[in-house]
Amino acid sequence: LLDALQALGFSPVVAHLNHQLRPEAEEEAEKVRKFAEGYGLPHVEGREDVQGFSRREGLSIEEAGRNLRYRFLFEQAELRNASGVLVAHTADDQVETVLMHLLRGAGLSGLKGMQFRTLPNAWSGEIPLIRPLLGVWRTEVLAYCLERGLEPVFDVSNLDSTYYRNRLRHELIPYLEQFNPGVKESFWRMAKVLQGDYEVIERQVEAAWEAILVQAAPGSVALSPEALLKEPVGIQRHLIRRAIARLRPGLRDIGFEAIEKVLDFLNTARSPAQADLVAGLRLVLEKDPDDRAGEGKDRLWIAAWEAELPAGDWPQVRETGLSLPVPGRLKLPGGWELEARDVPPSEDLQERARENPDPYQAWVSLDSSPGPFEVRARQPGDRFQPLGFSDRSLKISDFMINQKLPRRARRHWPLVAEGDQILWVPGYQIGHPYRLTPGTRRAVSLSLKRTGRDGDLD
Amino acid sequence: LLDALQALGFSPVVAHLNHQLRPEAEEEAEKVRKFAEGYGLPHVEGREDVQGFSRREGLSIEEAGRNLRYRFLFEQAELRNASGVLVAHTADDQVETVLMHLLRGAGLSGLKGMQFRTLPNAWSGEIPLIRPLLGVWRTEVLAYCLERGLEPVFDVSNLDSTYYRNRLRHELIPYLEQFNPGVKESFWRMAKVLQGDYEVIERQVEAAWEAILVQAAPGSVALSPEALLKEPVGIQRHLIRRAIARLRPGLRDIGFEAIEKVLDFLNTARSPAQADLVAGLRLVLEKDPDDRAGEGKDRLWIAAWEAELPAGDWPQVRETGLSLPVPGRLKLPGGWELEARDVPPSEDLQERARENPDPYQAWVSLDSSPGPFEVRARQPGDRFQPLGFSDRSLKISDFMINQKLPRRARRHWPLVAEGDQILWVPGYQIGHPYRLTPGTRRAVSLSLKRTGRDGDLD
Repeated sequence: LLDALQALGFSPVVAHLNHQLRPEAEEEAEKVRKFAEGYGLPHVEGREDVQGFSRREGLSIEEAGRNLRYRFLFEQAELRNASGVLVAHTADDQVETVLMHLLRGAGLSGLKGMQFRTLPNAWSGEIPLIRPLLGVWRTEVLAYCLERGLEPVFDVSNLDSTYYRNRLRHELIPYLEQFNPGVKESFWRMAKVLQGDYEVIERQVEAAWEAILVQAAPGSVALSPEALLKEPVGIQRHLIRRAIARLRPGLRDIGFEAIEKVLDFLNTARSPAQADLVAGLRLVLEKDPDDRAGEGKDRLWIAAWEAELPAGDWPQVRETGLSLPVPGRLKLPGGWELEARDVPPSEDLQERARENPDPYQAWVSLDSSPGPFEVRARQPGDRFQPLGFSDRSLKISDFMINQKLPRRARRHWPLVAEGDQILWVPGYQIGHPYRLTPGTRRAVSLSLKRTGRDGDLD
Repeated sequence: LLDALQALGFSPVVAHLNHQLRPEAEEEAEKVRKFAEGYGLPHVEGREDVQGFSRREGLSIEEAGRNLRYRFLFEQAELRNASGVLVAHTADDQVETVLMHLLRGAGLSGLKGMQFRTLPNAWSGEIPLIRPLLGVWRTEVLAYCLERGLEPVFDVSNLDSTYYRNRLRHELIPYLEQFNPGVKESFWRMAKVLQGDYEVIERQVEAAWEAILVQAAPGSVALSPEALLKEPVGIQRHLIRRAIARLRPGLRDIGFEAIEKVLDFLNTARSPAQADLVAGLRLVLEKDPDDRAGEGKDRLWIAAWEAELPAGDWPQVRETGLSLPVPGRLKLPGGWELEARDVPPSEDLQERARENPDPYQAWVSLDSSPGPFEVRARQPGDRFQPLGFSDRSLKISDFMINQKLPRRARRHWPLVAEGDQILWVPGYQIGHPYRLTPGTRRAVSLSLKRTGRDGDLD
């Protein structure tokens, strides 16, 4: 690669990471330096304790080497304002990569193998990873070296069949060639064709992602299950994979089981529900706080077990002593606003109140309520007498549990109260004593609206 | 399968095709009959000379057996108004199918394997092909038989490793299991996931197909290269595959090379051009007869070598003695209509004639042309003096060749003539003597329009 680049008139920076894995490592690093000097090219060398990193991170040696190597290369590329990181993967490497994914049971994203050019990649959003030799077979590279009088450094670890990739190269591929002598070419072409398919699907996933991502916070993402279920199942799988990858970027292969588990949960769970996923993640299904029309919309959270789901999207009140003027307005955090308006009482209004689908809109009778009214969170000892409960009340905490109000939103849920009497639990129910009746003289409309967002929405 | 269907309360018709390949075939057919009788189920038996069919059609024994078997099953299903053809492929069969495609180098359509339900399928657009046992492993089927006291008929040819599929089953899969003991499950899941991806892509291909298919005739389809090139390359490949499959429905695996050849032709050929494809097909790139705006639009034909490309889309004249009234109109086959109108001569008109992009619109000066005018095909000896050729003429056939008029459209191409003088070759050029000049007293507009279509458009 270096010689060809040079011959084509490019002047690359030569970067070499010494993995310190083999006794010959020092000598090889030295050879690379000499080689670069021979061409008069700038050269940079790094060294890492791959063995130690592998142990600390619980990665295989190959995985650890790969991570450190690319981190080094992209750091150097950024420092030197390089237009790309070029690596010398050959067509044989491509075939081995595809085979490795195949045996592990990958989907399209694995089967498509490596690409000639990848941007964005796992290490940069601006510097492409480029593989100019991806269409050139290893034998062709060797023939080129021979012709140009180049002596490649021979990595003896490549002969060691204990490494998985080497077993593929030296045992599995020759075995498969008995079934089809052109099997390498077949796999290479398959990858190329699947790259085109993958691109088509990625485009659609990208567009759908915007529609299904409702909220994102540290350690959690919320999706719209309704929007997700509208997509074809193929796209659903890729969207779920993407959500998991966002929370666990290190997870290289997101398994079939994990994705099927989410699909299954999505199709069968009823909110509120919670289940374990993989890699320290959980699934949470809960009511959508924005479900103004009472359509029963939900939110699906994929979250780390230790992450606290954000409550910022729900109406919350954290201050005390907030008085609600009637008529008048009161602003709450997160862009929510409560409004009280006098409205003429009528039979029509009673009808409207009965049929009203919006849980954040209510009408109450204030005939025997002089006020003052306040908006506050629940207090110990609070009881509530929901509409229809003519002769008994229940603890507000029990009411919230019965209504499946998400646990984390309960403590600061706004209540409209007159002393210790609760007029309205926005999103749920008015108090029975405050209902409109044919004799109501003073009717008031209460509504809680989200006028802006200043929360943690992505 | 039969026992389970029976236990579940279904009453299937038992259909068996005797392939007459093995000495035991008669005996086995007899066993199936007895088995069906034991359940009191209707039974039908067919017999085919698979060996002979294989020879005649140049198919492998397995391929020939498969074709005849499904043809028989679907014929029976149609006769009996069945709601599906059920076959007993297992999860192991699925894995073998995927492996077979893999080794051959298939794309998504092969790697996705078989489906639980396929409709439309190669044999029917109404009766689904159903594989209820596709998620059940062979060992599970055997355990079921054991438990229910069923004695499966054992096909000894399954042990014969000369058959490709059997080599996969008995050699390759056990070998792969050394690399990953769960390799069968991996492949089964891969197929399931890829089915979802395939569906997503098929939807997009279906939608794009409508936009790119311009014309279809026996043995040929015409595509819009412009519309095709607008699609992502993944979709382009599937569209090309579909076009080839339409002409060669028997071709089970449409190879990578064939598709890349079409892509290459599409990206590099300039009309008119022709090239060999595969399986007796050719590629033809030519002008789009509907390119009214002179934008240089083309048509890409994929056609059998022996098929005559339809000329029905081009303006053609097959009658003799058609006179063109000036002013007046004349209808031609295929929905084309020629119109001659007097227009006031002016400088503006000269300017318009110079700038006119529409090759099917022309203006001529008839100052020294008393007529009569006729519309006719070329005749032996016809010469033409195109605009700009002030002192010489050329053979009309040479003019047509120079202009790259598709060969098959030349013979009946309409010419507007006054005796042996050619006024206008619609789509190309007016005759030099008929050009507008500042002194023109009688200017006539000639236009050829397609007002309807009655051709062979799909």
